Amino acid sequence: MENLVSLSGFPEGDLEATIVERAVCDILREVFELHGFAGISTRAVEPVKELLKKGETSKEIYLLRRLQEDPLRAASSKKQLGLHFDLTVPFARYVRENAGRLAFPFKRYQIQKVWRGERPQDGRFREFIQADIDVVGDGELPVFFDTEVALVMVDALERLPLPGVTLLVNNRKVVEGVCESLGVNDVEAALRCLDKLDKIGAQGVSEEMVEAGIAQEAIDVLISMAQIEGNAEDVRAGLGALNVSSALLDEGLEELTQLLNECAERASGKVRAALRIARGLDYYTGTVYETVVEGHEDLGSICSGGRYDSLVTVGKRCFPGVGLSIGVSRLVSRLLSANLVSVTRPVPTAVLVAVTSEEERSLSNSIAAALRERGISTDVSPEAAKFGKQIKYADKRGIPYVWFPSSGEVKDIRTGEQVKADANEWTPPVEDARPQVRPA
Amino acid sequence: MENLVSLSGFPEGDLEATIVERAVCDILREVFELHGFAGISTRAVEPVKELLKKGETSKEIYLLRRLQEDPLRAASSKKQLGLHFDLTVPFARYVRENAGRLAFPFKRYQIQKVWRGERPQDGRFREFIQADIDVVGDGELPVFFDTEVALVMVDALERLPLPGVTLLVNNRKVVEGVCESLGVNDVEAALRCLDKLDKIGAQGVSEEMVEAGIAQEAIDVLISMAQIEGNAEDVRAGLGALNVSSALLDEGLEELTQLLNECAERASGKVRAALRIARGLDYYTGTVYETVVEGHEDLGSICSGGRYDSLVTVGKRCFPGVGLSIGVSRLVSRLLSANLVSVTRPVPTAVLVAVTSEEERSLSNSIAAALRERGISTDVSPEAAKFGKQIKYADKRGIPYVWFPSSGEVKDIRTGEQVKADANEWTPPVEDARPQVRPA
Repeated sequence: MENLVSLSGFPEGDLEATIVERAVCDILREVFELHGFAGISTRAVEPVKELLKKGETSKEIYLLRRLQEDPLRAASSKKQLGLHFDLTVPFARYVRENAGRLAFPFKRYQIQKVWRGERPQDGRFREFIQADIDVVGDGELPVFFDTEVALVMVDALERLPLPGVTLLVNNRKVVEGVCESLGVNDVEAALRCLDKLDKIGAQGVSEEMVEAGIAQEAIDVLISMAQIEGNAEDVRAGLGALNVSSALLDEGLEELTQLLNECAERASGKVRAALRIARGLDYYTGTVYETVVEGHEDLGSICSGGRYDSLVTVGKRCFPGVGLSIGVSRLVSRLLSANLVSVTRPVPTAVLVAVTSEEERSLSNSIAAALRERGISTDVSPEAAKFGKQIKYADKRGIPYVWFPSSGEVKDIRTGEQVKADANEWTPPVEDARPQVRPA
Repeated sequence: MENLVSLSGFPEGDLEATIVERAVCDILREVFELHGFAGISTRAVEPVKELLKKGETSKEIYLLRRLQEDPLRAASSKKQLGLHFDLTVPFARYVRENAGRLAFPFKRYQIQKVWRGERPQDGRFREFIQADIDVVGDGELPVFFDTEVALVMVDALERLPLPGVTLLVNNRKVVEGVCESLGVNDVEAALRCLDKLDKIGAQGVSEEMVEAGIAQEAIDVLISMAQIEGNAEDVRAGLGALNVSSALLDEGLEELTQLLNECAERASGKVRAALRIARGLDYYTGTVYETVVEGHEDLGSICSGGRYDSLVTVGKRCFPGVGLSIGVSRLVSRLLSANLVSVTRPVPTAVLVAVTSEEERSLSNSIAAALRERGISTDVSPEAAKFGKQIKYADKRGIPYVWFPSSGEVKDIRTGEQVKADANEWTPPVEDARPQVRPA
C-alpha cells in the first residue's frame, strides 16, 4: 500500500490506498451526519481577492488562466480566479452569500480537495483532502458549541484505525488577557513566538521575543504560561501562580474551563488544555484546537481549528463560528507509511465466475447477474482458459471466491474449500462482501 | 431545490441539491463496485503537454500558476500544469505510469470534478463532476467488454431517479468502412459533418459535406447510412440496402452486431444502434456510445464514450480500452430543474432533543449520545426556549422528531403523535433515518 508519485506534491494512492482514503472519508461523513451536520460542497475556485483576505497564505495560492487568455492580462484581471487553499474561506463566502436562506445555527461539514503551491515535504502535499465541520450562528453562538465540535471530532477520530488521539485546546482570550496584564501590546508577535515553542524551545522563543521588543519579565511569564497544560484545575492553578489579571483573561479562562469540564464529563481524557497552542491564523478569537496522534507527534496537528467571531459579516450582521479541520491526506499518508492499517483486497470483487468455453460465456454472465442482483460484487473471467489459470487470475487480484458454472460449485481459493451453490441463494460471509480496512 | 450561482459556470447546490448529487454518486459507486470495478482517484492537475495531446480541446484548459510566479515565465515553462478537463486523459497517463503494477484487464471507476474554461450555458458548467468506467487490456481486449461497460451503465442509470434512458451505439469501423467503400478519403471530415445531423439536419450536413469536398453520390449514401437505427437486423438490412462493402465495414458490422445481440439478450430494449453517432474525439477506434433520457433529448448525451485501441502505449506495448463517462453535474442539474426528484429533508438529523433549561442541557446531551450510539442522527436544541419555539426550530429544518427529556417522550412533529420512549431502545422508521431522495 503506498502513494505513487510522478509529480512532486501530487501523490496518487494505489488501489489499497484509495480504499483506505475512501473508508476514512466515509467514516467521517457518517459521524458528522450522526451529529446533525449537513454536507455542502463549494466550487474549487474563488476570486483571488477572496483568497487574499488572509494575507499570510497568499504565497500558497494557485491562480487560474484559460489557455487562450493573455498571461499578463489574466494576471492583472480583477476577476482572476484561484484554487481554494482551505475550506474555511470558501465556507465564509458561502455563508455570506446564502445568509438569507440558511437556518442558524448552521452546522455543516465539507470533505473536499484543496490546493497549496507550497514546497512539498513528507506529509505535506500540494493537493490534498480536508474534512471540515463548522457551526455558525446569527449574531451569537453560545460557547457550548466549542465543546460540541471538539467532541464530534473526538468521536470521528476514535472510529478511525488510529492510535490514541488527544485534542489540545487553548483560548486566545487567555493569552491576550495575560499579554494585556503584562503590558505586552504586540499580541500578534507574542502569539507568533509562542507558536514556535515545540520547534525551537523556550530559549529560542525567549530570544525571538526579545527581538520583538517584549520585556524580559513579560517573556518569563509568557513562557511559564505556555508550559501550562492539563485539566481545568491545572490551568486555573498554573495561571494563578503567574500573578496576572485582566477582564479578558477572566472571560477566556471561564470559556476554557467550561469547555474542559464538559469534555472531561463526556469524553474523559480526550481533551486537554495546552496553553502553548496559538494557531497562526489571525481570525481566531477564542478557543483554538490542535490534535496529536500518540506516537506520531512528529506528524504535527492532524485536526485543528478554532472559534472565529468575525470571519463572516453581512453589513452590520455578524456570524460567529467555530470549527475544526482534519487533514485527511496527511492522516491517510501516515496510516499507509507507518503500516497502521491493512486492506483485505485491492478490488471490490468477491466472486470471479469462471468461463468454461467462449460458447458458454452467457451462462457465466447469468450467474454473475444473479449474484449482483443480491449485492454481491462479481466479475466474469475475461478468458475461457484452464481453470487453474482462471483461479490464478482471481488470486492475483485478491478475489476470494471462484464460481464454476459447469459443476455449479463455488471455491474459497484461500482455503480450497469447494461447495455446491445456487447463485440465487449463496452469500459470502459479511467480512468478504467488500474490502475491509483493518488496524494492522 | 436549486443550484446557487454567484460565479458564472460554477454553481453550488443548496442542501437538498447536495443530497441529490451525493445520492447519485453513491449509487454509481455502488453499481460500479458491484460489477468489479476498482475505484481510483487521480490528481486534479496534469502537465499541460499531457492535456494538449488531444489538440481539439486545447481551448478549454485552465492553466495554473503560483501567485508569486512570474506570469510570462509560468506561461512558457515546460512544466506548466493545468486542471484536467476529463477523466480519460488522466486515466491513460495513470495506466501508462502504473502498467508494471496493474493486473490486466484492469477495470476502474473514477468519480471526480473536472474543469473546462468553456462559455457557461444551461447545463454546461466550468466545474463539474464526471463518473467514468473503463476496462483496459494488455495487448488485447475482447469485444465483449464493449457489451460489459454498456450494460454496467444501463444498470447504473436504471437505478437513478430518471425517466427511461436509451444507450445509442455505433462503430467507427462501420462508418470508416462505408467511407472507404465510397472512396471518401477525409473520414474525419465526414465524421465531423455527420455528428451535426441532429443539430442541422440532413440538408445542412449535405451542404457541409459538399464544402468538405465529398462527392454528391457519396453524401447521399452517408446520409442514408446515418439515418439507420434499431437492432442488429435493422442495421444489417439498412447497410445491405446501401450497396457498399469493405473488409473494415464487415469487421465493424460484426462487432456492432455482437454488441447489439448480447445487449438485446441481457437488457432488452435498452441499447439501440444509431449510425449517426460519431463522437467528436479522434481517439475512438471502434464502438462509440451516447445516451439519451426520454423526454429530455434536448439535454444531449448524458453518458458517452467508446473504444480506444491506441490511447495508451508504453514503448511497443499497447493497452486498448473501452469506457463510458456520465456527466453527473449536468444530470443532477436536470433532475433538479425539471423537478424529477424530491428530498424528504435538507439535514441528516432525525431527532432534535429539546432542552428544558440551560442547567439541564447535560441531560439532553446524554439522550443525544444514546441515540447517536445506535446510529440515529441527532441534534440538541441550541436554546432552552419554550417548547413551541424548539419545535419550530426542528420544523424549519425538516427534522421529523422532537424529544422531550423532562417527560421522556418523543413527538413526530408531522403527525403530532407523541409517545413515551427510551433513548436506548427507540428507533425511527427506516424511511426517517436519513434524508431520502425520491422520484417526484
